[in-house]
Amino acid sequence: MNDSRESAWAEALDAILREWAQTAAARDKAGGTAFHERRLLRESGLLRLSVPVEYGGEGAPWSTTLDVVRRMAQVDSSLAHLFAFHHLQLATVRLFGSDTQIRHWLSETIAQGWFWGNALNPLDKSTRALSDASGGYCFDGRKSFCSGARDSDYMLASAFDDEGKLLIAATPTNREGITVLDDWDNMGQRQTDSGTVVFERVHIAADELLNDPGPLSSPYACLRPLLAQVILSHIYLGIGEGALQAARESTLAQTRPWIASQAARPSEDPYVLAHYGDFWVALEGAKLLVERAMQAFDRAWSRGLALSESERGEVAVAVATSKVAAARAGLDVAHRMFDVTGARSTTAALRLDRFWRNVRVHTLHDPLDYKVRELGDWALNGRMPKPSFYS
Amino acid sequence: MNDSRESAWAEALDAILREWAQTAAARDKAGGTAFHERRLLRESGLLRLSVPVEYGGEGAPWSTTLDVVRRMAQVDSSLAHLFAFHHLQLATVRLFGSDTQIRHWLSETIAQGWFWGNALNPLDKSTRALSDASGGYCFDGRKSFCSGARDSDYMLASAFDDEGKLLIAATPTNREGITVLDDWDNMGQRQTDSGTVVFERVHIAADELLNDPGPLSSPYACLRPLLAQVILSHIYLGIGEGALQAARESTLAQTRPWIASQAARPSEDPYVLAHYGDFWVALEGAKLLVERAMQAFDRAWSRGLALSESERGEVAVAVATSKVAAARAGLDVAHRMFDVTGARSTTAALRLDRFWRNVRVHTLHDPLDYKVRELGDWALNGRMPKPSFYS
Amino acid sequence: MNDSRESAWAEALDAILREWAQTAAARDKAGGTAFHERRLLRESGLLRLSVPVEYGGEGAPWSTTLDVVRRMAQVDSSLAHLFAFHHLQLATVRLFGSDTQIRHWLSETIAQGWFWGNALNPLDKSTRALSDASGGYCFDGRKSFCSGARDSDYMLASAFDDEGKLLIAATPTNREGITVLDDWDNMGQRQTDSGTVVFERVHIAADELLNDPGPLSSPYACLRPLLAQVILSHIYLGIGEGALQAARESTLAQTRPWIASQAARPSEDPYVLAHYGDFWVALEGAKLLVERAMQAFDRAWSRGLALSESERGEVAVAVATSKVAAARAGLDVAHRMFDVTGARSTTAALRLDRFWRNVRVHTLHDPLDYKVRELGDWALNGRMPKPSFYS
Amino acid sequence: MNDSRESAWAEALDAILREWAQTAAARDKAGGTAFHERRLLRESGLLRLSVPVEYGGEGAPWSTTLDVVRRMAQVDSSLAHLFAFHHLQLATVRLFGSDTQIRHWLSETIAQGWFWGNALNPLDKSTRALSDASGGYCFDGRKSFCSGARDSDYMLASAFDDEGKLLIAATPTNREGITVLDDWDNMGQRQTDSGTVVFERVHIAADELLNDPGPLSSPYACLRPLLAQVILSHIYLGIGEGALQAARESTLAQTRPWIASQAARPSEDPYVLAHYGDFWVALEGAKLLVERAMQAFDRAWSRGLALSESERGEVAVAVATSKVAAARAGLDVAHRMFDVTGARSTTAALRLDRFWRNVRVHTLHDPLDYKVRELGDWALNGRMPKPSFYS
Repeated sequence: MNDSRESAWAEALDAILREWAQTAAARDKAGGTAFHERRLLRESGLLRLSVPVEYGGEGAPWSTTLDVVRRMAQVDSSLAHLFAFHHLQLATVRLFGSDTQIRHWLSETIAQGWFWGNALNPLDKSTRALSDASGGYCFDGRKSFCSGARDSDYMLASAFDDEGKLLIAATPTNREGITVLDDWDNMGQRQTDSGTVVFERVHIAADELLNDPGPLSSPYACLRPLLAQVILSHIYLGIGEGALQAARESTLAQTRPWIASQAARPSEDPYVLAHYGDFWVALEGAKLLVERAMQAFDRAWSRGLALSESERGEVAVAVATSKVAAARAGLDVAHRMFDVTGARSTTAALRLDRFWRNVRVHTLHDPLDYKVRELGDWALNGRMPKPSFYS
Repeated sequence: MNDSRESAWAEALDAILREWAQTAAARDKAGGTAFHERRLLRESGLLRLSVPVEYGGEGAPWSTTLDVVRRMAQVDSSLAHLFAFHHLQLATVRLFGSDTQIRHWLSETIAQGWFWGNALNPLDKSTRALSDASGGYCFDGRKSFCSGARDSDYMLASAFDDEGKLLIAATPTNREGITVLDDWDNMGQRQTDSGTVVFERVHIAADELLNDPGPLSSPYACLRPLLAQVILSHIYLGIGEGALQAARESTLAQTRPWIASQAARPSEDPYVLAHYGDFWVALEGAKLLVERAMQAFDRAWSRGLALSESERGEVAVAVATSKVAAARAGLDVAHRMFDVTGARSTTAALRLDRFWRNVRVHTLHDPLDYKVRELGDWALNGRMPKPSFYS
Repeated sequence: MNDSRESAWAEALDAILREWAQTAAARDKAGGTAFHERRLLRESGLLRLSVPVEYGGEGAPWSTTLDVVRRMAQVDSSLAHLFAFHHLQLATVRLFGSDTQIRHWLSETIAQGWFWGNALNPLDKSTRALSDASGGYCFDGRKSFCSGARDSDYMLASAFDDEGKLLIAATPTNREGITVLDDWDNMGQRQTDSGTVVFERVHIAADELLNDPGPLSSPYACLRPLLAQVILSHIYLGIGEGALQAARESTLAQTRPWIASQAARPSEDPYVLAHYGDFWVALEGAKLLVERAMQAFDRAWSRGLALSESERGEVAVAVATSKVAAARAGLDVAHRMFDVTGARSTTAALRLDRFWRNVRVHTLHDPLDYKVRELGDWALNGRMPKPSFYS
Repeated sequence: MNDSRESAWAEALDAILREWAQTAAARDKAGGTAFHERRLLRESGLLRLSVPVEYGGEGAPWSTTLDVVRRMAQVDSSLAHLFAFHHLQLATVRLFGSDTQIRHWLSETIAQGWFWGNALNPLDKSTRALSDASGGYCFDGRKSFCSGARDSDYMLASAFDDEGKLLIAATPTNREGITVLDDWDNMGQRQTDSGTVVFERVHIAADELLNDPGPLSSPYACLRPLLAQVILSHIYLGIGEGALQAARESTLAQTRPWIASQAARPSEDPYVLAHYGDFWVALEGAKLLVERAMQAFDRAWSRGLALSESERGEVAVAVATSKVAAARAGLDVAHRMFDVTGARSTTAALRLDRFWRNVRVHTLHDPLDYKVRELGDWALNGRMPKPSFYS
């Protein structure tokens, strides 16, 4: 990625973030699909960010792509999630697919300006894959939590075959038999469109399946769940940082300290300062853990199929550590920010509660308790996380 | 209060709570004035609860009245607040007013079935009281955070005279010059109507002022802020209890444990159980502190003007302790309940976030940090809280 | 217990506490057996406190006896433990023994002025009971954590027979074959003599076994582990209260605030006050939970064999709640007290770390995590704690 | 520093750490001056570590020197402190002294093998400096908390002149009039010899004063308190890491899980694993913050007098953040480690409480609350810490 290219998307990013910031509260209220903001993303070139230069992309390392995710999450964590999951689908193609598939889908993504959605939820067993005569399959069933499927061009979908094996396929969203429901209405992450996709006898060709080398087929392929997890770290951290920034604006705008305070203004109150000190320490620690995880991830990614199990395990530990710290910091700042913004900051006009609602919802992606347990098993027993779709 | 009277309102209460529970989520979404639910309260007889029998009321002790508040808050903390503040206005008349005023307003409250609202916010200095020739005053200005003023019959209003003295008056809500705005739109406590009341040259007669003995005029009169504070304790505790109950329903309805869990179902998971154990311990401790505060309050109330400063101070310590513990327990349970209810419980259909939004907003009534400081001053220096409208 | 009797031991208690307070730090340093302080206890009449009047005791309810334990623990938690476990042994005789045994051992305790020790550790499986021709048994093996066995006159000892059944016997400490080792050297609770007792072919007669009705033979008999647990609650709470008192003395003695503080002296510093506020709230909550548990315990005890499983279960929940809250409060105050006492308070001359060392050691009696889990099972699933020697 | 030199001291360090580990518990019990261990340090060459090569030292960057401090603190935080403060005195000479003084004292330190002690406590105002006819001064008074003065060859001493100006001088410890008392007996950090130094009319020559450029005379000179603070970060972190390691040994040695646990052994228990996960996350976050602070410190040091106020301020923020995080992590692990090591680990033979006692004492160096406040002022108001001897 040369400098002039970077400056192009960097400016586009700044412009997007400025606009999103203006409308984030209103769109949090409205919910639904962010068609306009998704269009901005398409036009910005940022959907090309992680795609290698050889396929027409920007060739940004994952650390750069996810730093963009973090910055988006400061302003709007729903759109950050959609953006991140677009790139996660492309990473999945690269990790689970054949060279031919990679070249085809990545080149087409650039050429056609595709926005990818997600219908790959390996915990949801209600979609079945029936083999047909052609060597292909017929996908049938419903899938929940399909973030970004609405208004997408292409998506990854998963189903289980008769023997319980997980199959993952790339398919155009508008293929016959696929219906993307507009049924996402949640307390947080309200514009992620994480609703239902219905598959009614959807034909999947043999060469649309990511079977070669296939899901979690090597330590390198097992980077996929780590990318998904470290995306979460960035979003949690970004929400925490955004909440801190929003809190600052509220505190600094106040002029009258509490009647029992001896401070001249709220921003000098000892308890207010103590809360900010806590927020700072938590977010800074999480930030460094996230950065370290990304450095490890970039290195591991560049190793490709040479990546060993234990090298992958070290990345897994770094990613899990970053996720626990970022989740805790994000939750804590979003929960406690009101102790420093005061009663008037709770007006619905500001919708400052969206930081809490967003991080509260998103930190339930998979249980934090089991991520902590995983790290305890490492710290005590020296066992690295066992690869799965969540570790 | 004899048993048959108690059983009458107890049944009415049960009926109300059952109905409110059905509509709480929808009304949290809608916000605005809960006309129907307020009518149920009027019809239930519960607005008479704290009024002495001699004026036609139920003569319930404050501990009984506030236990009703707590039970309401389990289901709907906005309505609990409106109900509590109706009784707080009546208590204010009894503590700050003359015998004649008490007899008049309490009797009329019963006879006319009045629902009282609040326009007494001593921190809001923007309402002025100009004396007129008649010995009365003209109130002029705007007042914020006037919970329950909408759809009320009578209310207490405050203003500052030229010398900065706080005047409190009882006035019919429909008096000429009073406009109750429908401008409350908040992230939580959405049906408390805590909006603005505009006073445009509102005439207040001399005998409508609570000047004899007047605000905070004796240790007994200084029970008024303690009643306001301990009402908060009950609401925070009730929200916490309601959140625990809602969480239980979600957890028990789940059948599939997390993939890394060895438990047969979520309700047997060791981490899920640990969270519930924490919730239990926090809520039980808060409950006992609230009960003790109310026992102390009932005793102090019954002492009347014989109440000494130090007796009042002991109640203040008990009330402040209950408030800090209840706020922390309520916040903690409402924040962490999602760790045991899982991702699907965040659907907007359930609106389970309302527990957090409600307790988060309401615990900002006055800063918890300064309440903790007050208790520290007691624990370390043996100084009792200095009476004010917030301690 | 009539008033003059109470005033007799109350004065004796005050005198003992005053003396212990003078020497607590020095004895914490020395460790070993507190012969002198044990003699004071014998002379004070307090060893008779829980013994029914009909056997010559004071007939104090358990709530009174344990309140004495709590007050002792404020000053010296090792001696509080020895005192409490003396009464726990007597309670064990009353709950597991026959009427004849009860009458005999309690009367003799009063007549001879016995101090009971403990060699009943049901987790320690290394003591075996071999039946002999006489219907009695021979106890053989070693037992660890035998608090108060040193310098005791009588004790309860346990062993497992060939079928793995737990046998509990009362025996004079000086019986042939019993050796009480002076091998307790611990980081905390240093004068509890919780060392090893060696049994070398110790003869136990049939009528020395508590077999009729026997251990945990009824809901009433199952109060024994609850008494043991609630003793712990009192000791943890007492340590926390003692730590708060010691912290206050240090803070109030300081004259110079931290250089960055705007307070006139440390006792006015906002952060110092915040810590004390936290300590106060935690200890007050724990205290009320402990008091409620004791009220429930007294009531259950008075029910005798009529006590039902569910009635016992309610006491178990109250006791477990008190224990978790008291442990957390005691640990927190003892850990954080140094944040308000400052650097100079760490001199070995004061040995203020003994509060932490004592509560840290004693809260490991059985894992707090599993007590929290037990309460979670109650709060979520409505399951009462299953009777065992630890619940 | 070339590789062969590094490997020389690296081996020496390993040998020292192995030996210290064997005796740490016993020496914690004994307290007093660690003559033998100090001799090992002198012989190891590690006292030369931070000294530039041009004066005969190893020329290690501060990050390397303090990493040695951290590793020492894992094993013995008293000796880590003495080692660190030796280098801190040398840094003070370099920051506050003239080129001539630097050359002289650093060269002599290497040539004579000096071990420096500390009698520079700017909060202790009881030492006065009286000017004499020669342009020198006479230091008179007592100074507390003089870590490492015992068994030292040289030290920095401070006093206040008639106008309240702080003077700092380098002096041989054996100068006439200086008496180093053996009066350090503390609950933790027991072998730091942080006792009293008595100055009785001690002559200080003009060229022994660090007056040119003098204390805190430039942003560069103001790195001195930051070095002192970041030394603390390393010691807190090291103690936490040492506590984790000691806990692991205890947990892994246990074979029997708690009776209510379904795990095969304690190291598989879900709650045990959760504690270890928490420890890991806290220590990893603190470690990265400490590493980042040192990178910033090394860069700032290399800037010398060109260092700007705001560049120094950024280091101050990084250092303060690392200190708060390391203190919290160290305290938390040392406090909670017993929850995973169990009751038997509290035997005085192991003295595992020393981790808590050490970190508890050392984190009182200056109040953590005010460090958090400092960071809050940065996070909220963008104010950098104002240089002082503690920030």
